[in-house]
Amino acid sequence: MSGADRIAYFNGRYVPEREVLVPFRDRGFKYGDAVFDTTRTFGHRVFKLAEHVERLYRSLRYLRIDPGLTQDAIVEITGEVVRRNLPLLEPDEDYWVTQRVSRGLDPSAREIWPQPGATVIVECVPLPLRERAPLYRDGIRVMTPSVRRTPPEALSPRVKTHNYLNLIAGGLEVSAQDPSAWAVLLDTSGNLAEGMGSNIFLVHKGTLLTPREQAVLSGISRETVIDLAREAGLQVVEKDIDLYDAYTADEAFLTSTSLCICPIASVNGAKIGNALPGPVTRQLTEAYCRFVDFDFVGQYLKRLS
Amino acid sequence: MSGADRIAYFNGRYVPEREVLVPFRDRGFKYGDAVFDTTRTFGHRVFKLAEHVERLYRSLRYLRIDPGLTQDAIVEITGEVVRRNLPLLEPDEDYWVTQRVSRGLDPSAREIWPQPGATVIVECVPLPLRERAPLYRDGIRVMTPSVRRTPPEALSPRVKTHNYLNLIAGGLEVSAQDPSAWAVLLDTSGNLAEGMGSNIFLVHKGTLLTPREQAVLSGISRETVIDLAREAGLQVVEKDIDLYDAYTADEAFLTSTSLCICPIASVNGAKIGNALPGPVTRQLTEAYCRFVDFDFVGQYLKRLS
Amino acid sequence: MSGADRIAYFNGRYVPEREVLVPFRDRGFKYGDAVFDTTRTFGHRVFKLAEHVERLYRSLRYLRIDPGLTQDAIVEITGEVVRRNLPLLEPDEDYWVTQRVSRGLDPSAREIWPQPGATVIVECVPLPLRERAPLYRDGIRVMTPSVRRTPPEALSPRVKTHNYLNLIAGGLEVSAQDPSAWAVLLDTSGNLAEGMGSNIFLVHKGTLLTPREQAVLSGISRETVIDLAREAGLQVVEKDIDLYDAYTADEAFLTSTSLCICPIASVNGAKIGNALPGPVTRQLTEAYCRFVDFDFVGQYLKRLS
Amino acid sequence: MSGADRIAYFNGRYVPEREVLVPFRDRGFKYGDAVFDTTRTFGHRVFKLAEHVERLYRSLRYLRIDPGLTQDAIVEITGEVVRRNLPLLEPDEDYWVTQRVSRGLDPSAREIWPQPGATVIVECVPLPLRERAPLYRDGIRVMTPSVRRTPPEALSPRVKTHNYLNLIAGGLEVSAQDPSAWAVLLDTSGNLAEGMGSNIFLVHKGTLLTPREQAVLSGISRETVIDLAREAGLQVVEKDIDLYDAYTADEAFLTSTSLCICPIASVNGAKIGNALPGPVTRQLTEAYCRFVDFDFVGQYLKRLS
Amino acid sequence: MSGADRIAYFNGRYVPEREVLVPFRDRGFKYGDAVFDTTRTFGHRVFKLAEHVERLYRSLRYLRIDPGLTQDAIVEITGEVVRRNLPLLEPDEDYWVTQRVSRGLDPSAREIWPQPGATVIVECVPLPLRERAPLYRDGIRVMTPSVRRTPPEALSPRVKTHNYLNLIAGGLEVSAQDPSAWAVLLDTSGNLAEGMGSNIFLVHKGTLLTPREQAVLSGISRETVIDLAREAGLQVVEKDIDLYDAYTADEAFLTSTSLCICPIASVNGAKIGNALPGPVTRQLTEAYCRFVDFDFVGQYLKRLS
Amino acid sequence: MSGADRIAYFNGRYVPEREVLVPFRDRGFKYGDAVFDTTRTFGHRVFKLAEHVERLYRSLRYLRIDPGLTQDAIVEITGEVVRRNLPLLEPDEDYWVTQRVSRGLDPSAREIWPQPGATVIVECVPLPLRERAPLYRDGIRVMTPSVRRTPPEALSPRVKTHNYLNLIAGGLEVSAQDPSAWAVLLDTSGNLAEGMGSNIFLVHKGTLLTPREQAVLSGISRETVIDLAREAGLQVVEKDIDLYDAYTADEAFLTSTSLCICPIASVNGAKIGNALPGPVTRQLTEAYCRFVDFDFVGQYLKRLS
Repeated sequence: MSGADRIAYFNGRYVPEREVLVPFRDRGFKYGDAVFDTTRTFGHRVFKLAEHVERLYRSLRYLRIDPGLTQDAIVEITGEVVRRNLPLLEPDEDYWVTQRVSRGLDPSAREIWPQPGATVIVECVPLPLRERAPLYRDGIRVMTPSVRRTPPEALSPRVKTHNYLNLIAGGLEVSAQDPSAWAVLLDTSGNLAEGMGSNIFLVHKGTLLTPREQAVLSGISRETVIDLAREAGLQVVEKDIDLYDAYTADEAFLTSTSLCICPIASVNGAKIGNALPGPVTRQLTEAYCRFVDFDFVGQYLKRLS
Repeated sequence: MSGADRIAYFNGRYVPEREVLVPFRDRGFKYGDAVFDTTRTFGHRVFKLAEHVERLYRSLRYLRIDPGLTQDAIVEITGEVVRRNLPLLEPDEDYWVTQRVSRGLDPSAREIWPQPGATVIVECVPLPLRERAPLYRDGIRVMTPSVRRTPPEALSPRVKTHNYLNLIAGGLEVSAQDPSAWAVLLDTSGNLAEGMGSNIFLVHKGTLLTPREQAVLSGISRETVIDLAREAGLQVVEKDIDLYDAYTADEAFLTSTSLCICPIASVNGAKIGNALPGPVTRQLTEAYCRFVDFDFVGQYLKRLS
Repeated sequence: MSGADRIAYFNGRYVPEREVLVPFRDRGFKYGDAVFDTTRTFGHRVFKLAEHVERLYRSLRYLRIDPGLTQDAIVEITGEVVRRNLPLLEPDEDYWVTQRVSRGLDPSAREIWPQPGATVIVECVPLPLRERAPLYRDGIRVMTPSVRRTPPEALSPRVKTHNYLNLIAGGLEVSAQDPSAWAVLLDTSGNLAEGMGSNIFLVHKGTLLTPREQAVLSGISRETVIDLAREAGLQVVEKDIDLYDAYTADEAFLTSTSLCICPIASVNGAKIGNALPGPVTRQLTEAYCRFVDFDFVGQYLKRLS
Repeated sequence: MSGADRIAYFNGRYVPEREVLVPFRDRGFKYGDAVFDTTRTFGHRVFKLAEHVERLYRSLRYLRIDPGLTQDAIVEITGEVVRRNLPLLEPDEDYWVTQRVSRGLDPSAREIWPQPGATVIVECVPLPLRERAPLYRDGIRVMTPSVRRTPPEALSPRVKTHNYLNLIAGGLEVSAQDPSAWAVLLDTSGNLAEGMGSNIFLVHKGTLLTPREQAVLSGISRETVIDLAREAGLQVVEKDIDLYDAYTADEAFLTSTSLCICPIASVNGAKIGNALPGPVTRQLTEAYCRFVDFDFVGQYLKRLS
Repeated sequence: MSGADRIAYFNGRYVPEREVLVPFRDRGFKYGDAVFDTTRTFGHRVFKLAEHVERLYRSLRYLRIDPGLTQDAIVEITGEVVRRNLPLLEPDEDYWVTQRVSRGLDPSAREIWPQPGATVIVECVPLPLRERAPLYRDGIRVMTPSVRRTPPEALSPRVKTHNYLNLIAGGLEVSAQDPSAWAVLLDTSGNLAEGMGSNIFLVHKGTLLTPREQAVLSGISRETVIDLAREAGLQVVEKDIDLYDAYTADEAFLTSTSLCICPIASVNGAKIGNALPGPVTRQLTEAYCRFVDFDFVGQYLKRLS
Repeated sequence: MSGADRIAYFNGRYVPEREVLVPFRDRGFKYGDAVFDTTRTFGHRVFKLAEHVERLYRSLRYLRIDPGLTQDAIVEITGEVVRRNLPLLEPDEDYWVTQRVSRGLDPSAREIWPQPGATVIVECVPLPLRERAPLYRDGIRVMTPSVRRTPPEALSPRVKTHNYLNLIAGGLEVSAQDPSAWAVLLDTSGNLAEGMGSNIFLVHKGTLLTPREQAVLSGISRETVIDLAREAGLQVVEKDIDLYDAYTADEAFLTSTSLCICPIASVNGAKIGNALPGPVTRQLTEAYCRFVDFDFVGQYLKRLS
């Protein structure tokens, strides 16, 4: 069996992925007029599904898209998609699990495709464990491109949409210099904002610093880390932080759905800290593993050889 | 015959539109990681095709997307698409003609869809002549939403991409108040920027004012109007203009591929000028008709009844 | 008896309102070079008079206007004005009560009007209970105009002055679309700021969010609600909030001297919450009524018929 | 005879100034919700009256105030006001001549003052020739306060309104240090904007520099100087200029209705140029005198003794 | 003995100050490419040396300058420099004690000066007790110049560098008006930032307000005051504060290495508070004296005569 | 003979460079409180010396530094310094020639160094011809760091000062990725500004685009190129240009004192144009060589081997 056998939910039906084909007049394709949300499995168990779907519905409300389904229905469909695809996974693999909702077709296109409402897709894909495994050994090289994160007065970064060109433009600058570096964009005031699907944390004298929630898409992993840190008695401060904070940090790490927590080795070529991971990052990584009852670091590192 | 018989170019083949279906893992769908350009026909003749394709290639260069085709090839394909679809048109109808290029599929998706490079679509669709006909009789009601146009430091407005959510968010504010009003967004300094596919012009004592080219997607229609105005001896000034200029204008109009020139009746409910169209707008409209050798206003107005 | 019999304090004397006539060379008229503050009565009792007068004196200090009277004197005068006018009220009516201080006349005008110092007026006027009664039944339709609130680096929004044109310009945009909607302006970063005399609150999962005090005129009603909420065990966060927060809110309401608390039905046409008022708004409204020992909602609603 | 005998136009009647008393509930007083425009006489002849009234009507349109009078009527009334008051002038005195239009009374106030529409005042007052005479001998000491000019996205500086507190707040900073210095505010980007009723010009190698027209109230005197300079073969550039331009200027001067042209001696204490006035300023001053056929400099300087 | 006998550390040696001569091709001279930090002695005891050196190393990390010495070595050298110079002090004098590290010489200059790494200087100089003594009697007159503090996106204000021209440019505006006034610059949003080596605090109803740490160089004295205030049960809020807060403050004071705490008499000519120092300032001054076990106010005031 | 024999002017004397040693208490070292200007020789002839010295004096005026010398004296001294050092040059070498003026010593330091006024240095150093030779063969790789150019409201970029840390911080980001790439910083709006001593030009369809003069230090080389281009009939537009303009340019080049004109190969890794140099760059290079009567490109390229 292979990825070619994966099943996805597509507008009311469970179909092989190869059949999930979107009319080119779908607004999701023409305009990126769509939202999505993504969680992952840990040892084949879906992580915080309800929280992700709740965030998906906030994105839908912001853009006034009616998905034509209740939150509960999306949760149920997602569970079903995972169940149908788990047999395709190797035992030590896991899935990204994603819901996507576009506004659907423009009325003029309904002559050809008579679909009245939103386009809904729920799908999963194996995590890129092998490609990202070196990040846990070597740390992530972070670069801040000159492109600035879109400001909230134009489009809220808190909405997880199909409009990623701002982040992609930032990433192109970075990958032209170092294909395996990760871009973290600054906001229009020069504060650290976020990467493509990732949030940044700094450690200063045992305190965690991370950008204010307004300027970034506050990941579920980010919130999980904040909760775990506070439970561990660490102070967490959400505020405007900038390159001074980054260059003088004791430790730094990224969070994302797939990475959970992964240490940062350097920012713009300036080495951060003395160990990889640093002690606070290690402490939080272990707490994260306990919380999800799964050794995601080991899962990555075993791909190294 | 109907729209259902239209033919489009899709990754090397001319196929019925119903077969132009994009894998949901195409970056054009997932991220709006795609660009496009649109011209129209006048009396079944394509307008300034080479200029539009040239602008398409500037968009491609900005985003470092390789279309896998030369500009000449795209021009030729576009001509062929139009030729194949002209028989479907009523004599007094015309087409929007559009090229779309996405970055293609993420490598991980090639297991299912083994397409290596960009996704290229060339397509056409009849202009919404009936829906827009009243605009030429009544003028356009323009509103400036509170959402600001994405600034160039985040993503250049001069690139015609599949990332339209900023403009859509502005449009949602406006259509909630007046479904037939058109949104023209301000930039982050409060200057008039642009609408979704449209440019704005003001007339002050016989001089044309229009936003600087850096802050907006400078439409081919906009450039055509500027050229025609200068040929007619009118002064045209491209600079930062704001609501003061709009409210005190003698006349105002929008330009776009489909509208060419269409008079503005009011801005945020404040009536502009005394006649619809005003004398300069009328003069430029007539010059435009002569230039394209086609009475596009008549084409619209005959739909009123 | 009627409004024509109302008495006001005017530069040292208690006179019929019709005699409160300001020389057109008063700087309050020529430049809006004046400050004011407004409280209301509840069941004919004046609300937090000392706090309002204290705020008035902060406004005076910011603009370096010397009123020529102590805070205590203004409090006393205000009490006297109310006392003299209470007999004119119907039993179930109440007053707005306002102090106004302009910098006075330019020296060159003293040839005609030999008044050396500030112009001081203390006056009252019945609340517009009938006009606003539907807001408590239907909720307020809030719109955010494209005009931005004047930034503090130009003129502090925390000073209650006679310069209202920024707020009026925002209101003109809104009322042209919907005469009974209320404008809430965004600040120059696109965050929610304030309306003309009103503050906005959002409810997210039981937490109150309201703009930071620096960017808005922090109303006494706003502060009263914050105090009542904290006494009720609700969390209140003052921070930058934007349209994402508004569109995804569970509830929203405005506060102002006259409204106290009044629920918001929609923001830019997007419906907020499921009930009017929502449960937290209702809880705070009831606490407010208890605090002022007066059913201001009932006072409004009885005007509906 | 004295100023106490001056006549003004007030809502349809010509009355002694002492009778021009505005109800305190007029929106012009409560909110500064009013516009004005001011010209002067030269040797008892009114300067560019039509241009000033035209600008007044642009201000009215911006704020959607209906004056209830045609432009021609305002011109005629102004002429009449001047005619009636000229006999009060000494032969070598001249008038400021001003039209003021407020939006009028709130409906609730009409119980007392049954005036339905706008409040219109046309008035004149002698120019402060003696007070300002030293400026032509010593030059103006200009200071740039820390307060920034209100940005156009909040309220257009091009509208001449009764909202002057931003300019007044800037002036308070300056006059606290040097009571006879003039404040010229910077805009929110740090560019030179304008003073209270005055525009600034710099001379660099024979070229005139002055702020762009969007950011300032473009005075009629400013436009007159630009016209005269161009007729004299000087280059005039309207663009963003800042303190670097000011400190390195060869000459600098202010223009305003009363001053026409007056040389600047220093900016923030840094001396500008070597002569007062410098040669270009002198050339333009002479051209201005010829244009208005009046020696306004001599009129000022004769007050020195 | 005199200042001419002072000893300084210079690139590995303790030499008379007159021998501390920097090659003009040192990047510290050519570019200000250097950092420093300064503490003082209290009764000949060095204050918080370790904290200052730690901050020095954060500055070095931000600019990627390798000083070629450990933090401990710098602490030790500093102690030695103080020891060697204490005999030169009068009993009631004290020193500023400063470390300076430049990036050193450009490679091309090493032909002449064969120094490979950083330039390191540790030096001391007597505090200007006599010049500043009046400030404790009269309070500091603070002025906010029109020049804005360099924003963090250009160069972090938290790094104590040899690039002081932004602060110097602000100071020049102020000293041209009042040579003994102190400049406190606003940031690019118009908030109070900092002076040249000084931080500002306001007192409002017993609460201390001071700018956020991101926008200013957070002095050790500033942090000492915050700690002392909190120990004394006072609330301290770090947030954006502006001229409204300053003009309406009950008290205000500056902190700096030399001043420790010194009351502000006025801001832009507007008098602050009723007593000098105000009660909270006095309380904190006394706590500061106890903390450093030294009456620094008395040390200053005894210079008055 | 070697560089060790070079002579420089230092505060009134011509001395060997090794004796140009600046007291560490010179404000030029402590604060970068100094300005400079640099020209070069072409075939041992000094280029546009008067223009450079004139610009130096504008920098001095901005910072209110009195050099204690006339412009003519500086020109003469510079000539003398060059004359004395020319014998040290190989025939095909040339000099950078630089004047530096610091504000001098703080008064307290005059006990040791009794110098009352400014510190003045005039010096020269051979151009780094060998190091930069590959740039003419391969083109310059330009990168735009995330650090933004200091805005004019903080410190004018048009003043050539000893405060270079903003540009150095940008350069550190870039050289960490590619040690031989050149940083060109963006301004705070995201427009292309300048590099450390270099200006950028783009070629679009035969038109030259370069940033507005306000935002950058307008180099003499930049002005020379503009003059030469206009003489050659090319259009030159100074305006806000951004990364869209760069990525879509036909050609691009840098200008600086040493480089004169040097082609850009890529911006952020995106290749610019098809030839190195492109035809317009080549045309302007040739015009530049003719203008200075010297083949500076050949001078560089002969160092390749």
